[in-house]
Amino acid sequence: MILQSHIDALSEMLGPKATTSDQDVIGPHLEEWRSKYFGKTQLMLMPASTEELSKAVTYCNEHNIAIVPQGGNTGLVGGSLPGLGDRSEILVSTKRLNKSIEVDVQDYSITADAGCTITALQEAAAEQNLLFPLSLSSEGSCTVGGVVSTNAGGVHVIRYGTTRALTSGVKAVLPNGDIYDGTSSLRKDNTGYALDQLFIGAEGSLGIVTKATFRLFPAEKQKHTFWLGVNSPSNALKLLYEARQVTSDRISVFEFMPHIGLQFVLKHITGTVSPLAGEYPWYVLMEVATSTDDQQLQENLDSWLSSTLERGLIVDGASAQSKKQANEFWKLRESMSEAQKHEGGSIKHDISVPVSSVPAFLEEATNVVLEKYKGCRPTPFGHLGDGNIHFNIMQPVGSDKNDFLRNWDEMNNFVHDIVIKYGGSISAEHGIGSMKKGELARTKPQSSLKAMKSIKRALDPKNIMNPGVLFD
Amino acid sequence: MILQSHIDALSEMLGPKATTSDQDVIGPHLEEWRSKYFGKTQLMLMPASTEELSKAVTYCNEHNIAIVPQGGNTGLVGGSLPGLGDRSEILVSTKRLNKSIEVDVQDYSITADAGCTITALQEAAAEQNLLFPLSLSSEGSCTVGGVVSTNAGGVHVIRYGTTRALTSGVKAVLPNGDIYDGTSSLRKDNTGYALDQLFIGAEGSLGIVTKATFRLFPAEKQKHTFWLGVNSPSNALKLLYEARQVTSDRISVFEFMPHIGLQFVLKHITGTVSPLAGEYPWYVLMEVATSTDDQQLQENLDSWLSSTLERGLIVDGASAQSKKQANEFWKLRESMSEAQKHEGGSIKHDISVPVSSVPAFLEEATNVVLEKYKGCRPTPFGHLGDGNIHFNIMQPVGSDKNDFLRNWDEMNNFVHDIVIKYGGSISAEHGIGSMKKGELARTKPQSSLKAMKSIKRALDPKNIMNPGVLFD
Repeated sequence: MILQSHIDALSEMLGPKATTSDQDVIGPHLEEWRSKYFGKTQLMLMPASTEELSKAVTYCNEHNIAIVPQGGNTGLVGGSLPGLGDRSEILVSTKRLNKSIEVDVQDYSITADAGCTITALQEAAAEQNLLFPLSLSSEGSCTVGGVVSTNAGGVHVIRYGTTRALTSGVKAVLPNGDIYDGTSSLRKDNTGYALDQLFIGAEGSLGIVTKATFRLFPAEKQKHTFWLGVNSPSNALKLLYEARQVTSDRISVFEFMPHIGLQFVLKHITGTVSPLAGEYPWYVLMEVATSTDDQQLQENLDSWLSSTLERGLIVDGASAQSKKQANEFWKLRESMSEAQKHEGGSIKHDISVPVSSVPAFLEEATNVVLEKYKGCRPTPFGHLGDGNIHFNIMQPVGSDKNDFLRNWDEMNNFVHDIVIKYGGSISAEHGIGSMKKGELARTKPQSSLKAMKSIKRALDPKNIMNPGVLFD
Repeated sequence: MILQSHIDALSEMLGPKATTSDQDVIGPHLEEWRSKYFGKTQLMLMPASTEELSKAVTYCNEHNIAIVPQGGNTGLVGGSLPGLGDRSEILVSTKRLNKSIEVDVQDYSITADAGCTITALQEAAAEQNLLFPLSLSSEGSCTVGGVVSTNAGGVHVIRYGTTRALTSGVKAVLPNGDIYDGTSSLRKDNTGYALDQLFIGAEGSLGIVTKATFRLFPAEKQKHTFWLGVNSPSNALKLLYEARQVTSDRISVFEFMPHIGLQFVLKHITGTVSPLAGEYPWYVLMEVATSTDDQQLQENLDSWLSSTLERGLIVDGASAQSKKQANEFWKLRESMSEAQKHEGGSIKHDISVPVSSVPAFLEEATNVVLEKYKGCRPTPFGHLGDGNIHFNIMQPVGSDKNDFLRNWDEMNNFVHDIVIKYGGSISAEHGIGSMKKGELARTKPQSSLKAMKSIKRALDPKNIMNPGVLFD
C-alpha cells in the first residue's frame, strides 16, 4: 500500500496532467499484449520533462516508494508492469516525454525523447535521406526509452547491430533522482566508465531513460530481396558467410524458417503463396541494400547465386522482381508468429548461440524436445545471421493446449541447458523481466550475478527502481 | 612499502617464471614511451593463466595490496605504471597471457589472450581472408588487454567503430579475485547488465582483462586511396557526408591535417613529397575499401569527385594509382607526430566533439590559443570522421621549449572549456590515467562522477585495482 499522503504529495508536485489514480486510464498500462501478465497500481505518473521526473524520483527515493517505468508497453517478459510481486509500486509512463526528435544530418545522428515511437524516428531520418535502422514488429508502439532499456534487436541487427550499437548517448534519471546526461553524438569518448552502456538493457532497474542519441546511416535506396530454399541450417550459414564477402558486408537481413513454418503461414494467412515451386527443409529471406544504384552488385549477386545453386548451398531461389514481390516474401516471414497461433499452444524460447553453433544447437535441442514431448512440432525461426533463434515448440496435433503449455518451465530448462552448453543466451532479445528471473539465477555464473547485484545496490541502495526485474 | 612476507607469498604462489623483483627486468615496464611518467615497484607478476592471476588477486585483495595491470605499455596518460602516487603498488604484466588466438570463420570472430598484440590478431584474421579492423600506430606492441581496457580507437573507427564496438565479450579477474567470463561471439544477449561493456575503457580499475572476443569483417581486398585539398573543415565535412552516401558507407578512413602539418612533414621526414602541385589550407586522406572487385565503385567515385571539384568542395585531389603511391599518401599522415617533434615543444589535446561541430570548435579554439599564446602554431589533425582532433599547439618559432610547455595545464583548461561547450570529450582516445584526473574532476558532471565512483566502490571496495587512475 502506498500511503495516500505520498500520492497526494506526488500529485501536488507534478500536477493533474502528469498524475492519475483513475483505474480506467491506468488500465491499458497494466496488461501485456500477450496477456500473460496483469499488473496493479494506485498511481501512474506521466511527467512531461526530465526535471519533473527527477523531482518525483527524488521524493520516491526519500520515501522508499518503488517505481516501475514503462514505454510503449510492448514487452513480453513482465518487465514493465507494476505490482506483479508483493511490493506496491507506482507506474511511470514516459508517454508524455515525446516532444522532440532532432536529426543532425552532418553527424548522421538523431536525438529523441524517451516517449517517441521507433516509427517516428524512422520517418524523421528518412525525411533527411538517412536511415534509423532499428526495425522490429512493435515499432509503431515501442518507444526510445523502451528500446534502450531492453537493448532491442530486430531484423537489421546483422548489419547495423542492436540498440546498444546504435546508441551513442543516453539521458536518464537515476534512482537517487540525479539527472545523468550522456546524450551526444560523440563517436569517441574515453572519460571513465561507460554509464550509457550500463543503462542500455538494464530494464529500467538502474534509472529511467528520458532521451537518447542514436547513429544514423545512409538511406537504403536499392534493395535486392531473395527467398531461398536450403537443405540445412549448415548450408544457410555457408551461404551467409559468402554473402557477407560478395556484397562487401551489405547484407541487411538474413532470416530463416523451417518448412513447417511456411506451411502454417500458407494454411492460415490469407493471400500468401510460396515463391518456389518445390518444398525444401528450410527457407532464407535475404536482403542486400545499398545507398546508391549499383548495377554491378546485381550482376555479382546473380552470378554468385548461380554458383551457390551449382554447389548445392541453395536448392532453389527467387529474386523479388518488384517492391510488391519483395513485400510478399516479407509477409511470409512476418506472419510466422501469427500463423503459429492458429496451430494451438506454443512453448517459446528466445535464445541465441554463436552463429557457427546454430546447426548443432538446432539438431540437439530438436532431438531433445521430440524425445521428451511426443508429437510436438518444433518450429524454430528467426534471425539466423545473429545466431538468434525463436525456438518455438508447437503442441502436438489434436492435443490439449493447456496440457501442453504446462510443460513450459520444464521444457525451457531442457532447452536452456543446451543453450548454455553452446555458450548461448537464454534471452537474446526480450530481456529477463520478472518472467526469466529464475532461469537467470539458475544459468548465469555466480561471479556475474554477484557483480550485477553489487552494481544495482551501488546505484539503487533502497531498491526502488523496477525492483521486480532481473533478480529476486 | 609492500611487506616482504607478501612478496614471498606471491612468489611462492605463482613460481619464479611469473614473479620478479629484479629491477633490470622490471625497468622497461616502468617508463612510458613519451618519457613523461616513471613508475616504481618492488614486484612484477607475469601470470600465465587467468587462474594463476585470480589466485594472486584474491591474495592481494585479502591483504589490501594495490595492483596496476599493464599490457604493451604503450599508454600516454600514466595509466599503467605502478607507484606514480603515494601508495605502493605491484605491477601485473599480461605479457605471458599470449598463448591463444582463435579465429572462428563462420562466426566472423576472433578470441585471444590479453597479452597478444594487435598485429598478431590482424595477421590471424587476414590468413582467413577476414579483417580485424582495429588499427593504430602502436599496433605492433599494444595488446588485447590494453586496447579493451582503454577502448582504443585508431584510423578505422569511422567505419568499424572503436574497440567497444568490436568487442563481443571479455574475460576478466575482478578485484575480489572472481573470474568473470563473458568471452563469446554472441551477437545478441539480453541477460542483465552489460558487464563486458563496463570493463571496456575502465583502465583496469574494475578488473584485469585476460581474454577477449572481437568481431571480424570481410577482408578489404580493393582499396581506393585519395589525397584531397580542401579550403575549410566545413567543406571537408560536406565531403564526408556525401562520401558515406556515394560509397554505400564503405569509407574506411577519413583523416585530415592542416597545411602547416604537411609542411612540417615535407621539411623533416626524408622521402616525402606533396601529392598535389598547389598548396591548400587543409588536406584529407580518404580511403574506400571493398571486399570484392567493384569497377562501378571506381566509376562512381571518379564522377562524384569531379562534381565535388566543380562545386568547390575540394580544390584539388590525387587518387593513388598504385599500392606504392597509397603508401606515400599514408606516410604523410603517419609522420605528423614525428615531424612535429622536430619543430620543438607541443602542447597536446586529445579531444572530440560531435562531427558537425568540428569547424566551429576549430575556429574558436584556434582563435583562443593564438590570442593567449602569441606566435604559437596550432597544428590540429586526426580523425575528422570521428570528430576526434589531436589539437596540438606547437611552440612559437625560436621560443624556449620548456618555457612554452609550462603553459600545458593552463592551455588545456582553455581548450577543454571550449570542448565541453560543444558537448565534446576531453579524452577521445587516450583515456584519463593519472594525467587527466584533475580535468575529469573539473569537467565531468557531478552526477556522472558520483555514479562512476559508486560503481568502483561496489566492485572494488578496498580500492586495490589500479587505484591511481580516473579519480583522486
